[in-house]
Amino acid sequence: MIRFNNDYSRGAHPAVLKALAETNAVSYGGYGIDPWCEKAADEIKKHLDKPDAAVHFLVGGTQTNMIAIAACLLPFQSAVSAETGHIHAHETGALEHGGHKILTLPAKDGKLDAGQIEAVAEQYRSSPIQEHITQPRLVYLSFPTEYGTVYSLTELKRIRAVCDKYGMVLFVDGARMGYGLAASDVTLRDMARLADMFSIGGTKCGALFGEALVITDPALKPNFRSYIKQNGAMLAKGWLLGVQFHALFENGLYFDICRRAVDQAMQIRAAFEARGIPVYVPSPTNQQFVVLDHGQIEALEKKYVFEPDHHVDKTHMCVRFCTSWHTSDEDIAALTADIQNL
Amino acid sequence: MIRFNNDYSRGAHPAVLKALAETNAVSYGGYGIDPWCEKAADEIKKHLDKPDAAVHFLVGGTQTNMIAIAACLLPFQSAVSAETGHIHAHETGALEHGGHKILTLPAKDGKLDAGQIEAVAEQYRSSPIQEHITQPRLVYLSFPTEYGTVYSLTELKRIRAVCDKYGMVLFVDGARMGYGLAASDVTLRDMARLADMFSIGGTKCGALFGEALVITDPALKPNFRSYIKQNGAMLAKGWLLGVQFHALFENGLYFDICRRAVDQAMQIRAAFEARGIPVYVPSPTNQQFVVLDHGQIEALEKKYVFEPDHHVDKTHMCVRFCTSWHTSDEDIAALTADIQNL
Amino acid sequence: MIRFNNDYSRGAHPAVLKALAETNAVSYGGYGIDPWCEKAADEIKKHLDKPDAAVHFLVGGTQTNMIAIAACLLPFQSAVSAETGHIHAHETGALEHGGHKILTLPAKDGKLDAGQIEAVAEQYRSSPIQEHITQPRLVYLSFPTEYGTVYSLTELKRIRAVCDKYGMVLFVDGARMGYGLAASDVTLRDMARLADMFSIGGTKCGALFGEALVITDPALKPNFRSYIKQNGAMLAKGWLLGVQFHALFENGLYFDICRRAVDQAMQIRAAFEARGIPVYVPSPTNQQFVVLDHGQIEALEKKYVFEPDHHVDKTHMCVRFCTSWHTSDEDIAALTADIQNL
Amino acid sequence: MIRFNNDYSRGAHPAVLKALAETNAVSYGGYGIDPWCEKAADEIKKHLDKPDAAVHFLVGGTQTNMIAIAACLLPFQSAVSAETGHIHAHETGALEHGGHKILTLPAKDGKLDAGQIEAVAEQYRSSPIQEHITQPRLVYLSFPTEYGTVYSLTELKRIRAVCDKYGMVLFVDGARMGYGLAASDVTLRDMARLADMFSIGGTKCGALFGEALVITDPALKPNFRSYIKQNGAMLAKGWLLGVQFHALFENGLYFDICRRAVDQAMQIRAAFEARGIPVYVPSPTNQQFVVLDHGQIEALEKKYVFEPDHHVDKTHMCVRFCTSWHTSDEDIAALTADIQNL
Repeated sequence: MIRFNNDYSRGAHPAVLKALAETNAVSYGGYGIDPWCEKAADEIKKHLDKPDAAVHFLVGGTQTNMIAIAACLLPFQSAVSAETGHIHAHETGALEHGGHKILTLPAKDGKLDAGQIEAVAEQYRSSPIQEHITQPRLVYLSFPTEYGTVYSLTELKRIRAVCDKYGMVLFVDGARMGYGLAASDVTLRDMARLADMFSIGGTKCGALFGEALVITDPALKPNFRSYIKQNGAMLAKGWLLGVQFHALFENGLYFDICRRAVDQAMQIRAAFEARGIPVYVPSPTNQQFVVLDHGQIEALEKKYVFEPDHHVDKTHMCVRFCTSWHTSDEDIAALTADIQNL
Repeated sequence: MIRFNNDYSRGAHPAVLKALAETNAVSYGGYGIDPWCEKAADEIKKHLDKPDAAVHFLVGGTQTNMIAIAACLLPFQSAVSAETGHIHAHETGALEHGGHKILTLPAKDGKLDAGQIEAVAEQYRSSPIQEHITQPRLVYLSFPTEYGTVYSLTELKRIRAVCDKYGMVLFVDGARMGYGLAASDVTLRDMARLADMFSIGGTKCGALFGEALVITDPALKPNFRSYIKQNGAMLAKGWLLGVQFHALFENGLYFDICRRAVDQAMQIRAAFEARGIPVYVPSPTNQQFVVLDHGQIEALEKKYVFEPDHHVDKTHMCVRFCTSWHTSDEDIAALTADIQNL
Repeated sequence: MIRFNNDYSRGAHPAVLKALAETNAVSYGGYGIDPWCEKAADEIKKHLDKPDAAVHFLVGGTQTNMIAIAACLLPFQSAVSAETGHIHAHETGALEHGGHKILTLPAKDGKLDAGQIEAVAEQYRSSPIQEHITQPRLVYLSFPTEYGTVYSLTELKRIRAVCDKYGMVLFVDGARMGYGLAASDVTLRDMARLADMFSIGGTKCGALFGEALVITDPALKPNFRSYIKQNGAMLAKGWLLGVQFHALFENGLYFDICRRAVDQAMQIRAAFEARGIPVYVPSPTNQQFVVLDHGQIEALEKKYVFEPDHHVDKTHMCVRFCTSWHTSDEDIAALTADIQNL
Repeated sequence: MIRFNNDYSRGAHPAVLKALAETNAVSYGGYGIDPWCEKAADEIKKHLDKPDAAVHFLVGGTQTNMIAIAACLLPFQSAVSAETGHIHAHETGALEHGGHKILTLPAKDGKLDAGQIEAVAEQYRSSPIQEHITQPRLVYLSFPTEYGTVYSLTELKRIRAVCDKYGMVLFVDGARMGYGLAASDVTLRDMARLADMFSIGGTKCGALFGEALVITDPALKPNFRSYIKQNGAMLAKGWLLGVQFHALFENGLYFDICRRAVDQAMQIRAAFEARGIPVYVPSPTNQQFVVLDHGQIEALEKKYVFEPDHHVDKTHMCVRFCTSWHTSDEDIAALTADIQNL
């Protein structure tokens, strides 16, 4: 079976594994205070114009979201998210478990727009009974979104302007950041300029595991390590994260492997469209959502693993095909041929 | 100014105040272990067929909701509520602050129906990735709702059936219970048979303050006092609550004063309808939501206090008129006359 | 039976009840935005040199402690308290329920000293692994303490100096503030100058219920009402608290009735000491802890209610006698005579 | 420099790294549902008599403690721990952050005894005001303790008996389980029979990272994966944990490498004792705490890294020497020779 079901079904890029093997017999300081975390942070910061940015390395995506967001919010403050946002839809109420409400907004193709956010912020600001509602204090965006779409630079700037107007924090969940950068006019430099905090996902982009969290807002930096430890997220052998991110960023490997996966995804999309099968969402990244009828699903299931998303009607289902850093060109060739013959 | 803006703008019914005065110079045991709480619970239980029901007295409504619901839920479990539900819309994220997600559903006239609840429960039951979402474990209904509407006995039974099918707890927020009972075919006996927990509001129905919480499900009774104390809700002079509820329930005063307020509200509603002004929601209880144009609002504002709810369009606003146990017939006569002359 | 078991077994001082009765038929705005809360705050502020202090009125003591303290702490910050402190020993883990650790210190007669607090603060400051421990950010004192003792002005100043040195917040739990002021060289003016937040207890000092919370530190004032509401502590008919505190503070009633109770307690203490029965703790306030043998307890139990505190040895128990604003001189005369005849 | 400062300063045992490399190019299902986690659980269960035990794999120790313990406790319930227990002393209040109080007891050499636990349990059971205190519901032991000591089988049985008597859960933190098993008469089989939940540490015993959590009590098994996910602890590529634990347990590697490290630690201890330097705590495991004067510390610091624990007096400090699975015999020979020459 050829797997297109997700982008976290395989170990690490060989270069990452090699780096881990090479450092396996060396001793380092624990808890993320080690030369590799420092070097990895430096490599990442080469892509930003924020020499003072704090960079922390965490193990997983939900963990990163819940800790980062909670560190931005006082108890009566809430996060604004698309209904489809990962923090609302797929994290078992982790944010609420930490005490915070999520104010959800209907999303088009997984995205929020600046106007929606402004409306929520204005509603609070103009409320005569503020103390009866939560203060929308943080905007949660995923980049790319859960449906593979990306924000344009213009869209991000508009959202940033709303955040500035209302004193809100902009947090970007970049669990698939590499794929998003490869498919948009947004750079890490832009991200660092526009977001107060954002993550750079490793788990889905070449690492065994790991997410880098970049904090650019000085007010959000102090004591962040205390939040990490208190939430059980401080990896004892923290250098394992540094080693991996260093390997990914040292020579631009991260960008290269994600770009390739996006190119492959575009071939899948083109194949479906050529076959007259519409994409459910026009995603320019490594996740492609298409609507198939049951016959088509049965035909493809014989050879490929892909993921059901939801029933569209009695005879159709929206399904997801994912490429990733380890997708082979042979697998793409096979799939696109089989799509053609559906 | 004549106040119709809410039902908690005035002290206590004279009988309640008298009872407080009469017991003021007597000493009692603290923290709700006293003869008055016991007697009040007994009076309430006369209206139920649940001799073993636990009855606790708390100070306020948000407090009662947050403690009662949290006591029903494990950390990964959530409450299902109408979007307009008080716990979601007006309690500053108190439930999330306690760690629990609210799964909101669109509401018609403030009400949920059994089918909606079943869909949410079924979605969880049939999910292959349950651990990524919260378990909808409790159904939150308000009776009457935030828009003054009530559930019929048939509707409640259907919701109960869904709860039974999916192992869910039914909690009814009865902050205005007295007004709801006066306007529906539902009795306290029904409530006790159908709900696992429900509150009987005193604050808005004749008391200075206080809510009675009735727990009928034996599994939810143990250690409830620990939850009360841990949330800072155990009144030192707990008998103050018992004395008030005893005064309200001893001779059916609670039911009488609420019925009268509902009759008065019906006069207001009739006056608006006779004048050709539609109610926004067909409420049979003490809260009446009507859509007025700015001229009508200005005219009425000269003499009456009522509450803006939301803008309907550029020239109209939905506003609330509330009666309560202390509304006088003179005030009703004045208002209905003025409505006629709008 | 004559009750000396606690100071919250009786309703309100007649002046307080009268004020409630007089305002019972008047309508007010809800949730603590009303003229009485304003007037009561003004009366209290006459005793402070802090015209900008925020004064909030809450219902109960545990509630006040948990909300006030939580509003001062970020998630990784903790409160420093005596082992005997109410927040640690008698509040069902309310503070931990809100997410915060309490760092307990051994207490002499219920009191902390500045040196102990400094040691804890210094331990954190000098720790090379701060992120593995919580930051001691708030000092919790009770005044008087759970054993009836009070801090002298000098002691409070020393503790304040430590707080200043280490950037700590000083919170004083004044559930029995009136009795403490009557027995010490500390005034409310001092309290407002030295503490960042402190409460003035009503429940045990003449009110039906209610605690005033004074916030002097500007950084701790914003959004405090959101914390109150989120914790279910915003009384709908908030003026009930304002009316009571206004009645207590308008003509110094609060100070008078507490001073009288302290004088009565001193008569009890003197009677025990004259009889050769030692006090367990040298308390100058309304709570007297004495060590009695079982025979003495049996003799006194026939006529008096008092509270067991703990077993001292096989034949002796430490018990508490409390006076309060409603203790009569006749009861004191009876008790002191009976002590003499033990 | 030769490192004896801790047991988590080096990557993985070569066999573990090899297993990771061999599986790196294979795709697996995510979130811990994969053949390796299943096989690893089976290998672990060969050492227990609990075929129905649930085995979960988590990334870190604090994470494991906080999730496991929170899953056992209702909001008003607390954990009993030694003052020196990791959950109290080194986890930044993670358990309190999750809402639970820790009841600490003074510990001898890091250990609790059954009598202490019974006293706390009895105090709650016999309290007339249970609702004002938390219910001690879980006993937290570390095995070995933070001071390297171990419980004997007899001691564990006595603690189990107290837990049975009072309906308490016994949780054993086995972050260094391998070293403890090598130094005591307790087996994993005993652990599974006596504890309701216990962890088997991988991070400090040969793995890159990872802790296995064994749940033997059927009541504690349901929905555990929801707790993992909600706390951000569900590793996307969960098989990485399964692969490592499988490599460690397949041929008893885990037991072998830990036994060897303990033997090496005994050589260090013997060397200190032969030199007349007393151990601070009589630890039979891989952590040795000894009291050195400043001159001795300076001498050893030239060649070795070891960890300061605390100042004993003006001229002495208690320091820790740790062996681990990767300590070489050469390093031990060097250290013991240098100790002899101190």
